[in-house]
Amino acid sequence: MKELRSIWWSRGSVVIIDQRLLPKKLKYLRIRTAKEMAKAIKDMAIRGAPAIGVAAAMGLALTAYRCKARNREVFLKRLRRSAEILRATRPTAVNLFWAIERIMKIAEESETVEEIRKNVINEALKMAEEDVETNKKLGRNGAKLIKDGDKILTHCNAGALATVGYGTVLGVIRAAVEQGKSIMVYACETRPKLQGARLTVWELMRDGIKVKLITDNMAAFLMQRGEIDKVIVGADRIIAKTGHVINKIGTLSHAIAAKFYNIPFYIAAPFSSIDFEHNLDEIVIEERDPREVLYVGKERIAPKGTEVWNPAFDITPPELISGIITERGVYRPEELKELSSGAGGRGE
Amino acid sequence: MKELRSIWWSRGSVVIIDQRLLPKKLKYLRIRTAKEMAKAIKDMAIRGAPAIGVAAAMGLALTAYRCKARNREVFLKRLRRSAEILRATRPTAVNLFWAIERIMKIAEESETVEEIRKNVINEALKMAEEDVETNKKLGRNGAKLIKDGDKILTHCNAGALATVGYGTVLGVIRAAVEQGKSIMVYACETRPKLQGARLTVWELMRDGIKVKLITDNMAAFLMQRGEIDKVIVGADRIIAKTGHVINKIGTLSHAIAAKFYNIPFYIAAPFSSIDFEHNLDEIVIEERDPREVLYVGKERIAPKGTEVWNPAFDITPPELISGIITERGVYRPEELKELSSGAGGRGE
Repeated sequence: MKELRSIWWSRGSVVIIDQRLLPKKLKYLRIRTAKEMAKAIKDMAIRGAPAIGVAAAMGLALTAYRCKARNREVFLKRLRRSAEILRATRPTAVNLFWAIERIMKIAEESETVEEIRKNVINEALKMAEEDVETNKKLGRNGAKLIKDGDKILTHCNAGALATVGYGTVLGVIRAAVEQGKSIMVYACETRPKLQGARLTVWELMRDGIKVKLITDNMAAFLMQRGEIDKVIVGADRIIAKTGHVINKIGTLSHAIAAKFYNIPFYIAAPFSSIDFEHNLDEIVIEERDPREVLYVGKERIAPKGTEVWNPAFDITPPELISGIITERGVYRPEELKELSSGAGGRGE
Repeated sequence: MKELRSIWWSRGSVVIIDQRLLPKKLKYLRIRTAKEMAKAIKDMAIRGAPAIGVAAAMGLALTAYRCKARNREVFLKRLRRSAEILRATRPTAVNLFWAIERIMKIAEESETVEEIRKNVINEALKMAEEDVETNKKLGRNGAKLIKDGDKILTHCNAGALATVGYGTVLGVIRAAVEQGKSIMVYACETRPKLQGARLTVWELMRDGIKVKLITDNMAAFLMQRGEIDKVIVGADRIIAKTGHVINKIGTLSHAIAAKFYNIPFYIAAPFSSIDFEHNLDEIVIEERDPREVLYVGKERIAPKGTEVWNPAFDITPPELISGIITERGVYRPEELKELSSGAGGRGE
């Protein structure tokens, strides 16, 4: 089967899988402007930290492709405006800001309108290709930690759909399976938006990898029964200064339970998910619409007037994390502060 | 507003609230036979350990009311047959077996058909009344642990709907509120069947008690933020010999997180939920239909062919439990083995 891609450039527009409709429908959305891309990110038609990074870069590429301005300053102004709209979509994942910065730097450094256009589009396409390569390296680094027969718990979707392709957590699992290891995945459904049930199960079944679905609150009981050998989850932002990991709501709960039962708890994320700049208290944890909790599809689950708290992410402290699997190697959380985004790092 | 009751005897039949339809519809089911009652228990039209105990007793009362046999042995045989059907509904909650045993003992000790009929019906009605009294005592015992301004996390529904009335966990909260304490409840939605979202939120809003809904996987993050002062949950079976508590799936996860954040974790349950006889490894943890996970109402959440694990309960070890609140007092889990079901106990 063809390798799954979540996003690609197609003749002056960008095509994404509309992940809100999975697994019921595999439908593609054609996106023509940065504004449309911003909406797709905000509404979570595309989601996952690495994927929204590339989506934002592609959003800027769309502006570069369409902008008719001939004056360099006007052209840059349009790009800056698009960057602003894209930055305002989701506050927590660092990849979004990293990607926009990377593209805007290229743009500002280019000399003519034609060069800006060409360089921005090329850089966005390059980032998409890099993402897949990064994940394959990350996958190989992670697969070394995986034993034949391992039962692995994961949360949310850190798969091909959360990246451009191959995935981070699911990249590790795919690499282990490609090495001939027999792996069983327990996918937590991941309330409220059910990315585990809808996306992770779908991706793994598509690849013929063994997967069983549980509700999030069953994970600790599986661990108690000795059914989980490792937990691997993604990251939306890793704070290098302290080693805290911000990831999909529910991650913390699994990390605490894994610690209680002495089960290794790994993060799998590209280097671009590491924030070398901010302190934890500077990060905004996105709170989303209460209706995400109150409804599953069209089914309302609680009385009218119910008050809801709906944070999209939580924070896992470094003492609960066994290792952070990246394309450059596997790090302990406390090692990150000694690195920098430019450093070569270890491993591959 | 009238005090909520989940079940009552009404002119030779039993009326229950059909809890599957809440909060959308408050509909009553009229039940005429033990077999109908068994179906209502199995399908979770009525649920909650204390409630299904009384429901089973009332099921036997229906057999006693309707049975036309004039021969004592035939009459008892019919009752034993009903008891068997009721026992086969749900394996985990001990109250079901306790209630059936209590009624059958009365029946077997009665001398004539008329006496059996009268005694069985009276005992079932007495058990229903006792349940509410028990919960009010339990509530007062628990309320002593609650401070003005406490934010309390609960899981599933251990309210009036899980008992005959007043509730165990919600009984503690109601008693604290009756004492003038200001309480805020965080209700975990409780996947897969959403008793927290559907029933606990509904009950508390009906009583004007402050409640906020979260998904189960948000609880640890709330604790990390210092937003939870106490966790109180119910029990389906408490193993006296070792102090383990079997309760709704998800309980263990909250208990581990509460320990990690040094938050008191209480069980609220009547003495009839304590199993003085069995060892933990003798207890069957009910596994229910995968469709409970795969569907929310009519919405399917995962691909066709998805494998699911759906245990209805989990097991919390005694070292995670701060206290067990009963109608006879508050016990540490390790104290239970020194008690017996007949003992007077402490407190009220």
